[in-house]
Amino acid sequence: MNRQQGKPNHFQMLQCGDEPLDVVHGQTRCLISEVEVKGFIERCMTAVGTKQHHARSLAEVLVEGDHRGHYSHGLNRMDMYVKDIQTGICAKDGEPVVEKESEATALVDGKNLLGPVVGNFCMNLAIKKANDVGIGWVVAHNSNHYGIAGYYAMQALKENMIGMSFTNTSPLVVPTRAKECTLGTNPISVAAPAKDGDSFVLDMATSAVAIGKVELHERRGDPIPEGWGCDPLGKITTDPKRVLTGGGLVPVGGSEATGGYKGYGLGMMVEVFCGILAGAQYSKYIRTWKVTDRVANLGQCFVAINPENFAPGFSDRMSDLLSIHRNLNPADLDTPVLAAGDPERMNMKKCEDMGGIPYHINVVKYMNECAKKIGVNPLLPCDKIVSG
Amino acid sequence: MNRQQGKPNHFQMLQCGDEPLDVVHGQTRCLISEVEVKGFIERCMTAVGTKQHHARSLAEVLVEGDHRGHYSHGLNRMDMYVKDIQTGICAKDGEPVVEKESEATALVDGKNLLGPVVGNFCMNLAIKKANDVGIGWVVAHNSNHYGIAGYYAMQALKENMIGMSFTNTSPLVVPTRAKECTLGTNPISVAAPAKDGDSFVLDMATSAVAIGKVELHERRGDPIPEGWGCDPLGKITTDPKRVLTGGGLVPVGGSEATGGYKGYGLGMMVEVFCGILAGAQYSKYIRTWKVTDRVANLGQCFVAINPENFAPGFSDRMSDLLSIHRNLNPADLDTPVLAAGDPERMNMKKCEDMGGIPYHINVVKYMNECAKKIGVNPLLPCDKIVSG
Repeated sequence: MNRQQGKPNHFQMLQCGDEPLDVVHGQTRCLISEVEVKGFIERCMTAVGTKQHHARSLAEVLVEGDHRGHYSHGLNRMDMYVKDIQTGICAKDGEPVVEKESEATALVDGKNLLGPVVGNFCMNLAIKKANDVGIGWVVAHNSNHYGIAGYYAMQALKENMIGMSFTNTSPLVVPTRAKECTLGTNPISVAAPAKDGDSFVLDMATSAVAIGKVELHERRGDPIPEGWGCDPLGKITTDPKRVLTGGGLVPVGGSEATGGYKGYGLGMMVEVFCGILAGAQYSKYIRTWKVTDRVANLGQCFVAINPENFAPGFSDRMSDLLSIHRNLNPADLDTPVLAAGDPERMNMKKCEDMGGIPYHINVVKYMNECAKKIGVNPLLPCDKIVSG
Repeated sequence: MNRQQGKPNHFQMLQCGDEPLDVVHGQTRCLISEVEVKGFIERCMTAVGTKQHHARSLAEVLVEGDHRGHYSHGLNRMDMYVKDIQTGICAKDGEPVVEKESEATALVDGKNLLGPVVGNFCMNLAIKKANDVGIGWVVAHNSNHYGIAGYYAMQALKENMIGMSFTNTSPLVVPTRAKECTLGTNPISVAAPAKDGDSFVLDMATSAVAIGKVELHERRGDPIPEGWGCDPLGKITTDPKRVLTGGGLVPVGGSEATGGYKGYGLGMMVEVFCGILAGAQYSKYIRTWKVTDRVANLGQCFVAINPENFAPGFSDRMSDLLSIHRNLNPADLDTPVLAAGDPERMNMKKCEDMGGIPYHINVVKYMNECAKKIGVNPLLPCDKIVSG
């Protein structure tokens, strides 16, 4: 079975999964400025032969992941990208190419370049088309891991447009009634602009949770809630070990009784928009997570929609929709009702207040060791210690 | 609070919510041909002044709902549409109008006509645009209940295209952390063509379940699974009474710990595509479910995507993706792994084998009483009794 066969490095486990800053308590963390982290990633990537502007694209997506609190999709993964370029499993030369095109659509060959290079190319094209005819729907094959899906959807916000982004990924999710992983965590991201820079930003895996959250519970010796994962027999389990050794994540919705078949359907919908529409790898044919024995050939989908082509007053209504929800009386006074994107906004605010992004000290040390091997100056300073 | 304040009629409760034929056991049911049910709905609707082709549009959507096993969206609701026309809360004259248009997009004024009239108009327009430029994205305001969302998405299958359909609905869902209903069950439907008439058809509410399923449990005196609904304080409950009296459905994913915030985000995404993009009513401003004191002004979204504009071989890959999943070893030998649309396909097969659609005898009697009041011949025959 196609599950989590690679060994995650220690820091991927420490800094696992889509956790806001304040979830991982009591760890020694080190404050580093965004500019420095971006520069560091650029230095490392160009040192192994990545073009300067490709390296910058990657750096921006990864740092945005960290800034938004999704450490599993940030600096923490830089070594994977460095290795992909070093081994040649990911291409460093060339640019994405449009293979087929209409006023509103395009099929792009990502030329096996870094995911963010393909993603930026496609999203820019989608926005251009949405400027012309109200919508752009662009799909790419021959792509690679592209970081947080939300990064691309959010590019549309700058043009006051709705943005969407989808990617298929290595199999980690067991379909309802099955016991084998055939779908990735296949994320859906939708961003919509409201007034004064406010926005709705949905950025969600179609699995109940990220694999990293299960790893974190396993490391702590804690059980997981019912509805996160299943054992090798396909039964919902609260034992994270069973999920990680031959089991898998379950789709959002959990068991069949609680609507897991809906998450399963959404995961397959993402596959339809990505692998199937783009003619990339799909489902169980995608290489095993963290095993880079062959080219990924991921399928990705990027959409921009121009509200100007529809009813006037879009951003006013968006702001009102967000206000309605943020102002609801919460069930528990300690946990206010949020809109999609608000937890990330809170995380960014914390970073701004602190004057940088806090990284686990071991992640910084590990990345600096990686940098040393390729002759790159370390991430600095790493003496601004903040407590978890 | 905006929840289930109207009183459902007895048969809506009996025939509640999205249940396949074999779920409601031991009830006396009556077999009626599709043609007869369609004709009956047409007769009733035209008797109260609906135009012939509008009545046919409605009849086709409702019978398709029953045929697919979604009785909550079929004949069972006919009296609601009859009443809407009788009271004038829904318009019977005119046709939908395109207000704004590009090669790939359109904004449509549904002119307060029956939902299926607006839906067919918009979906046909979306398909036409997808034929021209690869995609059509059409949104409507001033619409009404349109039956099953899947009906419109599936229209695209006839043209070998991907179809999508979304609608906002009256508030029945409590956002994560809240205790008040501000979102409808806001369905997502996506249909994609495979080879030989096969297809993927996702048609799902973004709530964990339909309200009818909670009503059914309440009537039986059974508890509901954790993750379907919450009480008036916003706490997840297994007591269906608490959900129905001041509580509400929860988004797919259930509690916050099991990913309910994802379903909440998806419900809001549907609202963005519908009420917000179309300039219709939205969120808590939509009239209370089953209370027709004012015009609905629902927002709806219809999309067609032409796979010809993307990588060649789409339907081959779709068929393979479906096969991969249908052929998976099931966790339980009695429950095979299915793809989205398969339960409905099985239900249609049963109807074909039986030679008609089985309706609860009381629904038939009730609808015949409605028909009598408006001088319409009854649904016939109703003596072909089949056991549940």
